[in-house]
Amino acid sequence: MKRTLGVCYYPEHWPEDQWAEDAAGMVAAGLSWVRIGEFAWARMEAVPGTLTWDWLDRAIDVLGNAGLKIILGTPTATPPRWMLDKYPDMLAADAQGNPRKFGSRRHYDFSHMGYRDECRRIARLMGERYGKNPHIAAWQIDNEYDCHDTTISYSDVARRGFQDWLAQTYQSTDALNRAWGNVFWSMDYDTFDQIDLPNLTVTEPNHPHQLAFRRFSSDQVVAFNKVQADELRQHTDAPLIHNYMGRITSFDHWKVGADLDIASWDSYPIGFLSDRLEGTAEEKQKFLRQGHPDMQAFHHDLYRAVGKGRLWVMEQQPGPVNWAPYNPAPLPGMARLWAWEAFAHGAETVCYFRWRQAPFAQEQMHAGLLRPDRAPAPALAEARQVADEFAQLPDVGTAQAQAALIFDYESAWAWDVQPQGADFEMFRLAFAAYRALRRCGLNVDILPPDTADLSAYKLVLAPGIMTLSDPLRAALAAFKGTALIGPRTDTKTQELEIPVPLGPQLPEVDISVALTESLPPSEQITLQGSGQFVHWFEHLEGNAKVRLATQSGHPAIMGGDHLRYLAGWPDEATFDRIIRDLCAAQGIVTHYLPEGLRIRDTDTHRFVFNYAPEPQDWQGTTIPAAGVHWAVLT
Amino acid sequence: MKRTLGVCYYPEHWPEDQWAEDAAGMVAAGLSWVRIGEFAWARMEAVPGTLTWDWLDRAIDVLGNAGLKIILGTPTATPPRWMLDKYPDMLAADAQGNPRKFGSRRHYDFSHMGYRDECRRIARLMGERYGKNPHIAAWQIDNEYDCHDTTISYSDVARRGFQDWLAQTYQSTDALNRAWGNVFWSMDYDTFDQIDLPNLTVTEPNHPHQLAFRRFSSDQVVAFNKVQADELRQHTDAPLIHNYMGRITSFDHWKVGADLDIASWDSYPIGFLSDRLEGTAEEKQKFLRQGHPDMQAFHHDLYRAVGKGRLWVMEQQPGPVNWAPYNPAPLPGMARLWAWEAFAHGAETVCYFRWRQAPFAQEQMHAGLLRPDRAPAPALAEARQVADEFAQLPDVGTAQAQAALIFDYESAWAWDVQPQGADFEMFRLAFAAYRALRRCGLNVDILPPDTADLSAYKLVLAPGIMTLSDPLRAALAAFKGTALIGPRTDTKTQELEIPVPLGPQLPEVDISVALTESLPPSEQITLQGSGQFVHWFEHLEGNAKVRLATQSGHPAIMGGDHLRYLAGWPDEATFDRIIRDLCAAQGIVTHYLPEGLRIRDTDTHRFVFNYAPEPQDWQGTTIPAAGVHWAVLT
Amino acid sequence: MKRTLGVCYYPEHWPEDQWAEDAAGMVAAGLSWVRIGEFAWARMEAVPGTLTWDWLDRAIDVLGNAGLKIILGTPTATPPRWMLDKYPDMLAADAQGNPRKFGSRRHYDFSHMGYRDECRRIARLMGERYGKNPHIAAWQIDNEYDCHDTTISYSDVARRGFQDWLAQTYQSTDALNRAWGNVFWSMDYDTFDQIDLPNLTVTEPNHPHQLAFRRFSSDQVVAFNKVQADELRQHTDAPLIHNYMGRITSFDHWKVGADLDIASWDSYPIGFLSDRLEGTAEEKQKFLRQGHPDMQAFHHDLYRAVGKGRLWVMEQQPGPVNWAPYNPAPLPGMARLWAWEAFAHGAETVCYFRWRQAPFAQEQMHAGLLRPDRAPAPALAEARQVADEFAQLPDVGTAQAQAALIFDYESAWAWDVQPQGADFEMFRLAFAAYRALRRCGLNVDILPPDTADLSAYKLVLAPGIMTLSDPLRAALAAFKGTALIGPRTDTKTQELEIPVPLGPQLPEVDISVALTESLPPSEQITLQGSGQFVHWFEHLEGNAKVRLATQSGHPAIMGGDHLRYLAGWPDEATFDRIIRDLCAAQGIVTHYLPEGLRIRDTDTHRFVFNYAPEPQDWQGTTIPAAGVHWAVLT
Repeated sequence: MKRTLGVCYYPEHWPEDQWAEDAAGMVAAGLSWVRIGEFAWARMEAVPGTLTWDWLDRAIDVLGNAGLKIILGTPTATPPRWMLDKYPDMLAADAQGNPRKFGSRRHYDFSHMGYRDECRRIARLMGERYGKNPHIAAWQIDNEYDCHDTTISYSDVARRGFQDWLAQTYQSTDALNRAWGNVFWSMDYDTFDQIDLPNLTVTEPNHPHQLAFRRFSSDQVVAFNKVQADELRQHTDAPLIHNYMGRITSFDHWKVGADLDIASWDSYPIGFLSDRLEGTAEEKQKFLRQGHPDMQAFHHDLYRAVGKGRLWVMEQQPGPVNWAPYNPAPLPGMARLWAWEAFAHGAETVCYFRWRQAPFAQEQMHAGLLRPDRAPAPALAEARQVADEFAQLPDVGTAQAQAALIFDYESAWAWDVQPQGADFEMFRLAFAAYRALRRCGLNVDILPPDTADLSAYKLVLAPGIMTLSDPLRAALAAFKGTALIGPRTDTKTQELEIPVPLGPQLPEVDISVALTESLPPSEQITLQGSGQFVHWFEHLEGNAKVRLATQSGHPAIMGGDHLRYLAGWPDEATFDRIIRDLCAAQGIVTHYLPEGLRIRDTDTHRFVFNYAPEPQDWQGTTIPAAGVHWAVLT
Repeated sequence: MKRTLGVCYYPEHWPEDQWAEDAAGMVAAGLSWVRIGEFAWARMEAVPGTLTWDWLDRAIDVLGNAGLKIILGTPTATPPRWMLDKYPDMLAADAQGNPRKFGSRRHYDFSHMGYRDECRRIARLMGERYGKNPHIAAWQIDNEYDCHDTTISYSDVARRGFQDWLAQTYQSTDALNRAWGNVFWSMDYDTFDQIDLPNLTVTEPNHPHQLAFRRFSSDQVVAFNKVQADELRQHTDAPLIHNYMGRITSFDHWKVGADLDIASWDSYPIGFLSDRLEGTAEEKQKFLRQGHPDMQAFHHDLYRAVGKGRLWVMEQQPGPVNWAPYNPAPLPGMARLWAWEAFAHGAETVCYFRWRQAPFAQEQMHAGLLRPDRAPAPALAEARQVADEFAQLPDVGTAQAQAALIFDYESAWAWDVQPQGADFEMFRLAFAAYRALRRCGLNVDILPPDTADLSAYKLVLAPGIMTLSDPLRAALAAFKGTALIGPRTDTKTQELEIPVPLGPQLPEVDISVALTESLPPSEQITLQGSGQFVHWFEHLEGNAKVRLATQSGHPAIMGGDHLRYLAGWPDEATFDRIIRDLCAAQGIVTHYLPEGLRIRDTDTHRFVFNYAPEPQDWQGTTIPAAGVHWAVLT
Repeated sequence: MKRTLGVCYYPEHWPEDQWAEDAAGMVAAGLSWVRIGEFAWARMEAVPGTLTWDWLDRAIDVLGNAGLKIILGTPTATPPRWMLDKYPDMLAADAQGNPRKFGSRRHYDFSHMGYRDECRRIARLMGERYGKNPHIAAWQIDNEYDCHDTTISYSDVARRGFQDWLAQTYQSTDALNRAWGNVFWSMDYDTFDQIDLPNLTVTEPNHPHQLAFRRFSSDQVVAFNKVQADELRQHTDAPLIHNYMGRITSFDHWKVGADLDIASWDSYPIGFLSDRLEGTAEEKQKFLRQGHPDMQAFHHDLYRAVGKGRLWVMEQQPGPVNWAPYNPAPLPGMARLWAWEAFAHGAETVCYFRWRQAPFAQEQMHAGLLRPDRAPAPALAEARQVADEFAQLPDVGTAQAQAALIFDYESAWAWDVQPQGADFEMFRLAFAAYRALRRCGLNVDILPPDTADLSAYKLVLAPGIMTLSDPLRAALAAFKGTALIGPRTDTKTQELEIPVPLGPQLPEVDISVALTESLPPSEQITLQGSGQFVHWFEHLEGNAKVRLATQSGHPAIMGGDHLRYLAGWPDEATFDRIIRDLCAAQGIVTHYLPEGLRIRDTDTHRFVFNYAPEPQDWQGTTIPAAGVHWAVLT
């Protein structure tokens, strides 16, 4: 596999006489790919029905003739203003029922059928015109689904769509009432059109009602994406891609990914650290100009799986952004480090966002590879350095991981609906597990909840998976390594009820969760020996062997040699210790990494990345701050 | 009086063939009462006008024949979905004017006359059918008034009702304009239908406007309750009960209580600690699994008075709940302690909520006496222990308290409207006073604001009572013990104006409040000797004797031997010292209790409760954590 | 210039038979002015079209005949309730689109043409009746523009007005689309009536869209004020005044001030400290009862310029107010200190708010010079003392300041729209600069952004002025002292784009801002020698001389002898050091003032004010807490 670099570019933002010079600059910087088009609907179709392709034809020619491969985006994240005259009800609504108005982007409701048809139409027109164009080497559909919390809409359109979805799903209100336990508070429905969206209720709506709405909302994203994918496939053989975001769980990426060829994502390490991650003030300060040392890796590993092995970074932060609470500049070297880390995790292509900083509009304070005055910004040289380094490295491949982590969007929704404690989210638990694996120096694969074969791994974690799928349950039964599941794993039915008999229902392992406690930050459950649970603790019962106990004698880990259940949420040090113990038993080598240092093995090389703001030692080698080190695996 | 235990049960949640076994289990657990029916309207009347009683008949038979006495609840907190088709405007509205929608419970506006008629109808139908049923030994009307902040509604229905209420109250807009001081900002009205609800105004609405709306809103709860009470009384002689909540001041419980026979409340000590009480992080952690040591006692004493001497606990927390920010399990023993504390405060019956944990719907993570799989949960044995202990204790009676605290809902509304400082609430002040009395080991009676006779007490506190009623003013004049009133007491007229001459208007005591200061947490007023005021400080004038002064020479307490005024809000230690001094002067014995230990005397016994998470010593006896100790009073 | 005192009075609040006594009391207290009328529309015109002047005639007679000069207010901040029947759409709307309802004050939309006509009518009627009345010596138009955030409205009326304003401003949507860079996210408009208000968009609306709305909103205030000013000028020669508030940047005070004769403001030092200023907990506690030592001076200096040299304080806090989060009493002496400080900064008149504390309505807990029972409140004697002290001091004049600070409302809006960091506001930066000048003991003039002549000053600061006006750019080019501009100064175009070539565009000084960073509170940029930047740091380029550098070698200050650019936001100590260095180079004497002590020179005297809660030494003289000291300048 050949590693490549690319960049995002907006020919419609610049005078046409600058395009050729820009294209030449990209090539000179070592870039191979350029993404265009994804916000340009108003330039393609300024008047409804009148398509204006000439400027885009010329832009594609200029870029392509310069030697660049083009990713062409469908512009459906930015419908023109005239679309609202046609479909005044196409806007999504917020939780108070207010329309989310025109004036920025993503101003559409995923469940609006009229707009979905318009998206099919523009995808068809673009496919017809550019599907066979030799410069168009990939397609991006829409842009950053759910960005600005757009998956969920409380509009009338969504309500009608939800009622229809419910009717198809449950067939009768009797079935729905039984499935949801509506008897609880006389919440039964007589007809589907009585069922409202689960917002603005007096107190929390019934949990399966909420979960159904989350499933419906995710299904709309899947369907919206599939409409364009199906249309484009009729016109092109180039791979279809979507650019996902970080820490977004509102729709099922596994299902969207199933309809596409490559999973890409938009990686903004510094913005995400400040805006989308928990963490102590000390951590946030320490990694202020580098980003969280595990956030990028997690998403690389996640989306590599969502892309069925094919991973891109479609947008890579090059400098300060405009949208986080605070926007400092990256440490020199990070634009290089982030790219190499992506490659080490299997990325084929990393595209920086964007070529030239726009001097106007919402993102004018968002850095590019060039400044607004076209002078080079600091990241340009770092991109060039990465391109130069490609020659030093053969195709390094992507090593098999020893450890796997199951990640399930449906469970994330179930946690959202039923957190049972303030601020509890499944992502936090999954990320805590992932980070522990990483701190031990392991390669990790992230797997979907319907994984049927775990035989490639020695260690599998499945924390917080509310309901085990049949394939995964079977895979766990057949597993020869050690799987550690829990807390919360398999403790709910598909309809978010407590199963009777109590879960989990594990093959040949007798464990059940008798009682659940959520804990404030001031409270911990101390374990025997050392360590503690935080946030969450379950009282376990059953005949399975107690592997670890709390100081007061409750089981902390129970199970057999191959399948164990974790009764709580370990803090960092405790999670490390648990993982190390499991690895030791499985003969997996673990490492003690200095703070901020992370390793990733490929088939041929070990990569070492220093996220710390100071140099760190790796087995006698000093890795500078923001440094990348690689060595042939022996 | 015979102490009894009971439990809440939902036959409609379970297969009918399990009812008999459940009933036998209750009896075996030592329970005498079972509450049913309060959320089952959709099962009683699935189709409008078609009543389905047979299942309820059978449930009553099964439970009654097992030897249980039944509390039957009217299901008016959960109108079925079809009710909204009949009365689309019956939903309450939030402060932004959005309807508070169907999908959970309490989805009705107290001021909707159509729905009020429906409630009269279902009460009549239930009364006709079950009013003479020998198993039905008590009735509960509706469920937890104001739960989920449902007293106040900003709906159109409420607006029209409020305008009508104003017309009846003031008779002319001239009178209203004068009473409210509408001249202030040209806020005069010409007709009653010009008067809007006091939400969404540019800045705060006129204080008497707000206060009138609070009075109107409370009156709707009183009227709503009375409709059902009046109807049921025509069909039954069994006592009528409502189950109040903790720390709810939005409606006048004294007035609702006047129309009922017994006051009960729903006691969730751990949930309330986390969700409804101020406190330091240390306190919240210390009592995490026990609840606040004074919260339950306060409400027992309050509702014993609201119930004119008859007090029940209708719902007693048995384990972790689902609705607080964090939901840990109680310390072993607390389910017993809470019950005995209720009995020591005069409760006749304590019902645990609920028999079996529901595996479905909103409260599936709320513990019961049984687990979802019908296995015993930890509280079951504790309930059984309490039942067994009944035999050891004769009827202990309810001792007369030496101290009384006046508690007034109208004053709480006036404080809400005019806090004069961030986060100030009258409950906090009253509770602070109550806690000081408790920390001194006193029995306390809580009295209504129209109390006419204080002669049974040696010490009376009346903090924050904005306007003294005529009876209370007379009672204070005749009082032979020591009354300590203030701050804010009698400093406002009924219409929330400052009286001229300045208040308070005290019999034979010349004191007036010349100036009021509210203080941020960083500022204290230091008292001579020791101690300090926090939050609030009034500059007093007058010829009354200065009993305590601030370091800068302002009066801190003024007054005569029998009636004194407190100029500020003492911190904990200062409140203790003030109470002890008053007790010493009155010959009342006080105690120095170890942290978390509380005592309560009945006619015959002294009960000692240990809320601390570690053993505490009481006069040579070690009381374990969560321990209850009793000894005959000598 | 003769210094005078005054007071605000509401004859409509009191029985007519008390007016004469009140008037006599004012005169006895040394007051010369009384402001009346500004909330009394409902008393002037209880029925639409029927004017009732007799009570006001008599009130004017009583007050005037007692020897008081009267400021008569137009009552347009409180339209009567009947106005809404005439113009149901006259209410402003909040950001969610909800109407901001009747029931308090300022319940009107500045852009409602019908209401604007009503204001012209009442101004005409008042002008006709009282324009030549010898007692009416000044007029106040409306009251506290923007109080309660009323400049900005998201109503339909505002939307239509905005569309019209855009059409007039841009003439074609093509021009608008280009000016705003709407190509960015396909945000182009085809017609002006497609352009919505910039609220409720999916993510942030385009910055020039927001900025245009801010300009439109400010223009409405200017136009609203001008309608009344133009009308009154036809009937009276008395000066026209508006009473501005503190820290309000939502409309352009320079433009409103251009249509008036005197700028007055309402000074609530203690309320503003708690409610409207950033600051550490220690500062807030230290100045709890005095107010921030620079807040009043800043606004005196600002509004003296807005008033083209004529400054009043129309409302001066006399005691605790009702509207801040906490409302303590002032330190004894502060009501005198605040008045003298205003006079030292050039105020002609200081009016206390209000004569007698109202015992009713929203402000009943707001102190006056008299208590609600008409007894003297503490501030009365302090006012009397000030009046007595007038005799000791000749006309002290207003000294020329050595330092000037440019303050620009348009830049404040641009910062609001594009803060690039949480909580960044231009006022904070300008105030930080002002405070540094004050801590060095300098007199400061605040100047508008179109200042064309700086020759009277030796030191000029222009921080955060997003776009330099042509006159100011020319004035800087001609300046012979030292001007320090930046950060952010001249880095944007009028339409809030980044200019290419990059700004600033400085005469004969080659500097440009290559990259901008916003910094969280945990991050600082250390400077060489000592000191640091906080919040903000710009990477500068160019051939200009580096005057100060960061520890890592970036320029911190660049420029020539007369014009320098500051690359970041200095912390307090660093700002002091920078100012002192510039002053030393310019031969300006600076002082090291004890904490809380501030000085202000007039033509003849130096005034010293002690804001500290303890005595401070000034060159051998002990100034008590809240003390005022003056000495003849030598």
